[in-house]
Amino acid sequence: MSTDPRQVRDSLQRQSFMRLLGAHAPVIEPGHVVIELPFREDLCQQNGYLHAGVLTSVADSACGYAALTLMPLGSDVLSVEFKVNLLAPGRGDVFRADARVVRSGRTLTVCQAEVTAVAAGQPDVSIALMQATMIVRPQVS
Amino acid sequence: MSTDPRQVRDSLQRQSFMRLLGAHAPVIEPGHVVIELPFREDLCQQNGYLHAGVLTSVADSACGYAALTLMPLGSDVLSVEFKVNLLAPGRGDVFRADARVVRSGRTLTVCQAEVTAVAAGQPDVSIALMQATMIVRPQVS
Amino acid sequence: MSTDPRQVRDSLQRQSFMRLLGAHAPVIEPGHVVIELPFREDLCQQNGYLHAGVLTSVADSACGYAALTLMPLGSDVLSVEFKVNLLAPGRGDVFRADARVVRSGRTLTVCQAEVTAVAAGQPDVSIALMQATMIVRPQVS
Amino acid sequence: MSTDPRQVRDSLQRQSFMRLLGAHAPVIEPGHVVIELPFREDLCQQNGYLHAGVLTSVADSACGYAALTLMPLGSDVLSVEFKVNLLAPGRGDVFRADARVVRSGRTLTVCQAEVTAVAAGQPDVSIALMQATMIVRPQVS
Repeated sequence: MSTDPRQVRDSLQRQSFMRLLGAHAPVIEPGHVVIELPFREDLCQQNGYLHAGVLTSVADSACGYAALTLMPLGSDVLSVEFKVNLLAPGRGDVFRADARVVRSGRTLTVCQAEVTAVAAGQPDVSIALMQATMIVRPQVS
Repeated sequence: MSTDPRQVRDSLQRQSFMRLLGAHAPVIEPGHVVIELPFREDLCQQNGYLHAGVLTSVADSACGYAALTLMPLGSDVLSVEFKVNLLAPGRGDVFRADARVVRSGRTLTVCQAEVTAVAAGQPDVSIALMQATMIVRPQVS
Repeated sequence: MSTDPRQVRDSLQRQSFMRLLGAHAPVIEPGHVVIELPFREDLCQQNGYLHAGVLTSVADSACGYAALTLMPLGSDVLSVEFKVNLLAPGRGDVFRADARVVRSGRTLTVCQAEVTAVAAGQPDVSIALMQATMIVRPQVS
Repeated sequence: MSTDPRQVRDSLQRQSFMRLLGAHAPVIEPGHVVIELPFREDLCQQNGYLHAGVLTSVADSACGYAALTLMPLGSDVLSVEFKVNLLAPGRGDVFRADARVVRSGRTLTVCQAEVTAVAAGQPDVSIALMQATMIVRPQVS
């Protein structure tokens, strides 16, 4: 039995850092999680764009939870490593990290995420790409 | 003439996200920047460890500013990409991202950073390694 | 005027290492290059699977040439960095690296490649994913 | 009991691709492996420099075997992922990949490697950096 969306949401709500960032997850389905984050002035780098670390944080959480949706009930997930290419400045009203499982193994899961900047009246812009490895752990209870 | 430590510090203070995290830079010298961050309960993942995105954020800023110290006066720096391996859970009182320039080119600078967890009465633990590419830009003025 | 497929092919044929590996490029079109490689027993790791370095080599060349197709005529391309996730053992008759440009900037181009193993009578298997950064240079003449 | 240097050397000699490249391992000790490769004209990219894939191949094998030296006797090692930053063109007489284990866990081992170009009468040049994750497997027998 796989981890169900409600448990993924519970785990996400235990991530105090996602709450601090104001992030939420409009999509949680098998192998696919989307985390969104409205722009805020206290999440920026020196030029007023969203800090690359913020983009990375939501992409990392989205990858981790995408992995968790395909793992056995009661599993926990930890990031092994990730790599991010930054494609454009973090400018926009809302940032959306869309993560999908690419390969789900017994121990390791590989995910890819794309972070998109959404601004009113403008086309969405792809601003970051993540390729990540996650590991399954028995749940900390 | 290179960017001097004061200008690096000015730029870092314009990073609202570093202020939100409570990060500061005890070391800024040519090719070497250290950023420190005390543990806080609102910076965590689901098990109460520091979120990987927080570690990445301070390592990214440390790499960027290490690169900036070797760039011409008036330069700005942006992250091109980075890769992080997570070595141990983010448990500790203080987290220290120690970044050094590995190769400083005309356009691109390559940096490595190590993030260490420091806890009273315990040996420091290396918890993350970053390998990053930064790009020089004429300053946004 | 962009680099045309014939020039990309010329440059690829000057890569002595691709000849040594027995690689060729069945697809060269704007922003998209495929390089194929038949299995050979002298390209393996200790268990008789294709060496990860071989997969990486063809994926790297495919990314570089995909980038070159979108660069001004007379450009040369160099790899800045790449990251590879290995998804399954390198078992098959033919290996195909399919590379696409994700973002083409003035200086830097970001590409993704997927390496697939093809074996007679079996479904294709995705065995590696690359995320890479390439840089444009004026041609060495 | 750990894997001893002789077994590492046996496994390395079963890597037909390392033989094709002309690579050998002058150093095999716990947590540290060096693989060397003389320059050859059939290992090049379009400008006559060593192909990035060749550098990556020796760095990958060096990381894998560095990991294997710290694993239980009878283990096998596979690459999970690696990231390479290319710092300078692959020009030189001999290329040396020096790999060290950074963290050896039960399942995963993290390594770093530096590839150096050595040329008669010139200072050594650091040309590539790898950060890699390896996984332990029971030996294929």
